[in-house]
Amino acid sequence: MLKGHQTWVFYSKPTILASAAVGGPFEAKGAVAEDFDILHEDIWLGQDSYEKAEKKLLEQAGEIALEKAGIKKEDVQFFLSGDLMNQIISSSFAARTLGMPYLGIFGACSSSMEGLALASLIIDSKSANYVLAGASSHNAAAEKQFRYPTEYGSQKPPTAQWTVTGAGAALVGEGGHGPRVTSATIGRVIDMGLSDPFNMGAAMAPAAVDTIEAHFRDMNIEPSYYDIIATGDLGKIGHRIASDLLTDHGLKIPENILTDCGILIYKPEQPVIAGGSGCGCSATVTYGHFLNRMRKGELKRILIVATGALMSPLSFQQKESIPCIAHAVSIEM
Amino acid sequence: MLKGHQTWVFYSKPTILASAAVGGPFEAKGAVAEDFDILHEDIWLGQDSYEKAEKKLLEQAGEIALEKAGIKKEDVQFFLSGDLMNQIISSSFAARTLGMPYLGIFGACSSSMEGLALASLIIDSKSANYVLAGASSHNAAAEKQFRYPTEYGSQKPPTAQWTVTGAGAALVGEGGHGPRVTSATIGRVIDMGLSDPFNMGAAMAPAAVDTIEAHFRDMNIEPSYYDIIATGDLGKIGHRIASDLLTDHGLKIPENILTDCGILIYKPEQPVIAGGSGCGCSATVTYGHFLNRMRKGELKRILIVATGALMSPLSFQQKESIPCIAHAVSIEM
Repeated sequence: MLKGHQTWVFYSKPTILASAAVGGPFEAKGAVAEDFDILHEDIWLGQDSYEKAEKKLLEQAGEIALEKAGIKKEDVQFFLSGDLMNQIISSSFAARTLGMPYLGIFGACSSSMEGLALASLIIDSKSANYVLAGASSHNAAAEKQFRYPTEYGSQKPPTAQWTVTGAGAALVGEGGHGPRVTSATIGRVIDMGLSDPFNMGAAMAPAAVDTIEAHFRDMNIEPSYYDIIATGDLGKIGHRIASDLLTDHGLKIPENILTDCGILIYKPEQPVIAGGSGCGCSATVTYGHFLNRMRKGELKRILIVATGALMSPLSFQQKESIPCIAHAVSIEM
Repeated sequence: MLKGHQTWVFYSKPTILASAAVGGPFEAKGAVAEDFDILHEDIWLGQDSYEKAEKKLLEQAGEIALEKAGIKKEDVQFFLSGDLMNQIISSSFAARTLGMPYLGIFGACSSSMEGLALASLIIDSKSANYVLAGASSHNAAAEKQFRYPTEYGSQKPPTAQWTVTGAGAALVGEGGHGPRVTSATIGRVIDMGLSDPFNMGAAMAPAAVDTIEAHFRDMNIEPSYYDIIATGDLGKIGHRIASDLLTDHGLKIPENILTDCGILIYKPEQPVIAGGSGCGCSATVTYGHFLNRMRKGELKRILIVATGALMSPLSFQQKESIPCIAHAVSIEM
């Protein structure tokens, strides 16, 4: 049901029956390692390409979520997934393996919450019994496609971020036990004219702010409603900008509430420059860390605001600025 | 509402309040030219890149659909769109121009019906007043990205297809006048092991067949229910294979009912080899030609089965076969 201009309220409160997070060796040394279901020592996952390794991460996340819920593949109507690879091959090839009817989505790193929002809408409208939502990224596959092969050893400025090697998946259904999806705010494309692909956090911060403001306007609630409001992958730079912009706009969110998955995922001593990024960042931190904290009773209400930079290497070459977007999903215990 | 395993029945029958099709110079010489709202003489549309030209096609299709319906941009809640460009930049940059909350989708050339299916679900579940669904492709942009720049003059086998330069858009809402979306069948990924990117029609045919069979099984109706069952862009080769496969599976569909947008869009004398393809193929033929025929009273019930090849140049280089998908949407007057 539409509320306000861009928010869906899910009156049936679809349940996240199970979720899973799978990561790589760098995530294994991270700050939320204990919240991953599998942590691979081998960045190749035994595959002969990074792209195939990414597909494997996503397949595993989906399969583990199903296993935890005790639900068979055949009983899941739809798989919704997105990733950063050209033509989202990680998602489409994983969909081939999983064998479920499939809806490919793309919102760059906002794909995680775009998928969860649509999955919840599908369940809320009784258009499926079970929907699996997933998202993935792979550091080396992303570096190769968007920047340079990692073997070149190219240097990066302090505003750059580290693409997470990981995948997250959530099985959504009606009833049962688990965290409930209560609303979702779909973002507009915001472009403040920034064009530096090594400073995505700054480019995406205004989109996160726009969606957060829309969420509170549409829902007519205060930020204190939530225990945590976590942006997807703004990193240190973008997080500070988003926090300042929100304060400027009269929506001051306390430091203990406003956080960012890209800051949380790694330890301060890991050389991730401004923080984590990639579709797998908000997907693993949400479907692993945050949902685990909810299940333990540490968090009651969270708002995940997954952020995405909708550019391509070609749009950058053609001197376009970076259009950004953020989708927010509210999860309550 | 879910019916069977993978079909949504829209009991409120969302209305296509207006639709638009925009094409290029080659489409202007085609068989359904009179059904386009704008036909550009200049393949560049006055832009400095093919990618920017494609974005322009999509923006225009969206703007014309809104204009025809007499609905302002601000009153449309969501824009759903997909295209073939890496990171679907045509859709995302058009979403920046249109300024509506945006859900990016990707199903290769099936994106047109993936978008219409989701838009109808959003309207049917009262999650928006108006949703704009669009899809686009540009011949030269696609050739450059997937194959070779057209200036190379590379030769192609007789199974190859011609990417349509065009965009289609449909404004969907509740009530009002116009063709109604009554159901949608979301496809599974089907991969029969074919790997020739110059024979997409053959690769996609089994996916079209799988979705058509699922549609009739879930809806418990016969093919004769429809005046037209049109696949998206199988072309001559794929169309023949799909027709044969359906007959083999005991679902013989008469020649005057089963057709293909990729065959319909161009004249026999145009050098398009096996026929048209691209997201813009089913989008322009459906949102222009077919809906016009419905509005004139020539067609009462149609099923559009948009087909997509979910590979990338990289997955081809890595010796992967081509995973394919098809989404079917039923439109009734």
